[in-house]
Amino acid sequence: MSHSTTIALDAMGGDDAPAVVVEGVDLAHVRLPQVAFLLFGDQARLEPLLERRPHLRSCCQIRHTDQAVKGEDKPSQVLRQGRQSSMWLAVESVSRGEAAAVVSAGNTGALMAVSKFVLRTLPGIDRPAIAGFFPTERGETVMLDLGANVECNANNLVEFAIMGEVFARILLGIEQPSVGLLNIGSEDVKGNDAVRSAAAILRDHPLDLKFHGFVEGNDIGAGTVDVVVSDGFTGNIALKSAEGIAKLYSRFLREAFSSSWVARIGYLLAKPALLKVKMRTDPRRYNGALLLGLNGISVKSHGGTDAVGFANAIGVAAELATHGLNERIKSELTRLKSSDGPQA
Amino acid sequence: MSHSTTIALDAMGGDDAPAVVVEGVDLAHVRLPQVAFLLFGDQARLEPLLERRPHLRSCCQIRHTDQAVKGEDKPSQVLRQGRQSSMWLAVESVSRGEAAAVVSAGNTGALMAVSKFVLRTLPGIDRPAIAGFFPTERGETVMLDLGANVECNANNLVEFAIMGEVFARILLGIEQPSVGLLNIGSEDVKGNDAVRSAAAILRDHPLDLKFHGFVEGNDIGAGTVDVVVSDGFTGNIALKSAEGIAKLYSRFLREAFSSSWVARIGYLLAKPALLKVKMRTDPRRYNGALLLGLNGISVKSHGGTDAVGFANAIGVAAELATHGLNERIKSELTRLKSSDGPQA
Repeated sequence: MSHSTTIALDAMGGDDAPAVVVEGVDLAHVRLPQVAFLLFGDQARLEPLLERRPHLRSCCQIRHTDQAVKGEDKPSQVLRQGRQSSMWLAVESVSRGEAAAVVSAGNTGALMAVSKFVLRTLPGIDRPAIAGFFPTERGETVMLDLGANVECNANNLVEFAIMGEVFARILLGIEQPSVGLLNIGSEDVKGNDAVRSAAAILRDHPLDLKFHGFVEGNDIGAGTVDVVVSDGFTGNIALKSAEGIAKLYSRFLREAFSSSWVARIGYLLAKPALLKVKMRTDPRRYNGALLLGLNGISVKSHGGTDAVGFANAIGVAAELATHGLNERIKSELTRLKSSDGPQA
Repeated sequence: MSHSTTIALDAMGGDDAPAVVVEGVDLAHVRLPQVAFLLFGDQARLEPLLERRPHLRSCCQIRHTDQAVKGEDKPSQVLRQGRQSSMWLAVESVSRGEAAAVVSAGNTGALMAVSKFVLRTLPGIDRPAIAGFFPTERGETVMLDLGANVECNANNLVEFAIMGEVFARILLGIEQPSVGLLNIGSEDVKGNDAVRSAAAILRDHPLDLKFHGFVEGNDIGAGTVDVVVSDGFTGNIALKSAEGIAKLYSRFLREAFSSSWVARIGYLLAKPALLKVKMRTDPRRYNGALLLGLNGISVKSHGGTDAVGFANAIGVAAELATHGLNERIKSELTRLKSSDGPQA
């Protein structure tokens, strides 16, 4: 069949690359037969993986390179010496128009640096942000920034709000997603200067954006808003704290269910229902964070994910590629800047 | 019997005051028969509650006032006009030496402001912090600051580390608690200036403190260190994000167990084991955050807690009062400042 969308993959990025990448392609291919893949990486390692999957031959193309970014490489180092790496070449194929999006499970800092350097930021966007999903009582919430920007001013936060809102509209399919600023209280006087000023801007400008006001950490899980905006330091720590406590809960439950024979039988009876909980909170379902604010779609997969998770990250990339994410962000920004909004 | 310790209570603070306060005293009295209580608040409302509990007569004294701090009162307002409030008078009884500690479930900002104004900070401490507990895979972890200081410099964080370490030694009974700085990565280059400089100070100074280095959000639940140090903005959001996700999990589980008859039977069989999980993660167990760094012990109870939670907060206050918390913090600080450490 002919392929309507091409996605570039950093086949050497992630803990179990390239095997997980090719397995992920295999899973994604079933759901996305219209997508073709450019696999950047070591041909000698990729060939045998594809040979075992002849059905992927027509949708996969290998682009050989023997360089790869390592997990411990510093972003600045990659910018200087990594131009032949699988990550760089994959990102570059997006800027050249060969691919509509890139997915990498490699080094986050390096992917951000390379994506920013090669793709450039959207006009009007000062700093790109990392956006991801989070399970909530009401479904899913978009969170950003998850770690790209340690310190942010009010304008950065406002830009994140706009970008996150468009992202939620496309990926969650919500017509008017509500947006909240993460803070330590819901009163106007709470928080630091950046969040207070950002709230004032979002409240007073004709952004066509459903601004809820401040939200607190517990509002993330409650699903109080569709988009939670914060600086990258806070967002990363909120996300990882929540992940840690979810892991703690799972462990306590596992211990409880294996603590006696009766509890074990109880577990077996409740197992189908409990598997649903596991599915709802499965981190692989939420894999695929977008580097938002660039002239091109660059998706970060968790480095330790398996094929199911990697296939989900591919799904996020494909969804964004077909819905013109960046065009919609640009038009929102134009509206903001043409009113007497903040200057980037 | 004679009472060796006196604890002052803001009997009008909290969502269900004064009823929850008196019920909390009732529960605490069983475990702490040596503690006497000064109840600051409305005599007309407190009398009937105590009359129903004649066994508390000998350990409880009412100090009447008809003023009380409200939840929405601003700290500055309370400082100007709240000198006759139950909160203020309770804190004052500590500074006067009448009580060894104060517990309030009222307005957090107001309690911090009043405690700081009335009790003053310890010599060498620039800013007090709010310290609390968190359940982990290994037991419990002390976290601070949970929201007193929105922005912190490196010296503030170092002081929090010292105070938190002494707090953990007393309340968790660990001889050499390990201390970690909350950050978005474990590498030296990660994070903002404050955490990086604080790490350098903690690493290089002869503090007799087991400094682990940076920890990430997921390390909180994992129990990687005994004390997690952060600024109040990040700490508050980490704590509440984790609380939110714990609630989400509970809800998903409840839904799962009631989704079918078989699952319900499974639940009944596993119930005793599941109750243990509930107990291990019961927020009431972790109630009682200390305003750390003051010349006196001021404990904040969650405003929405019940009598069990309030009794736990009283337990924290009693424990700290009998172990000379502040003397031990002062001696650690003297050691720090006498070496060429940072100047407050």
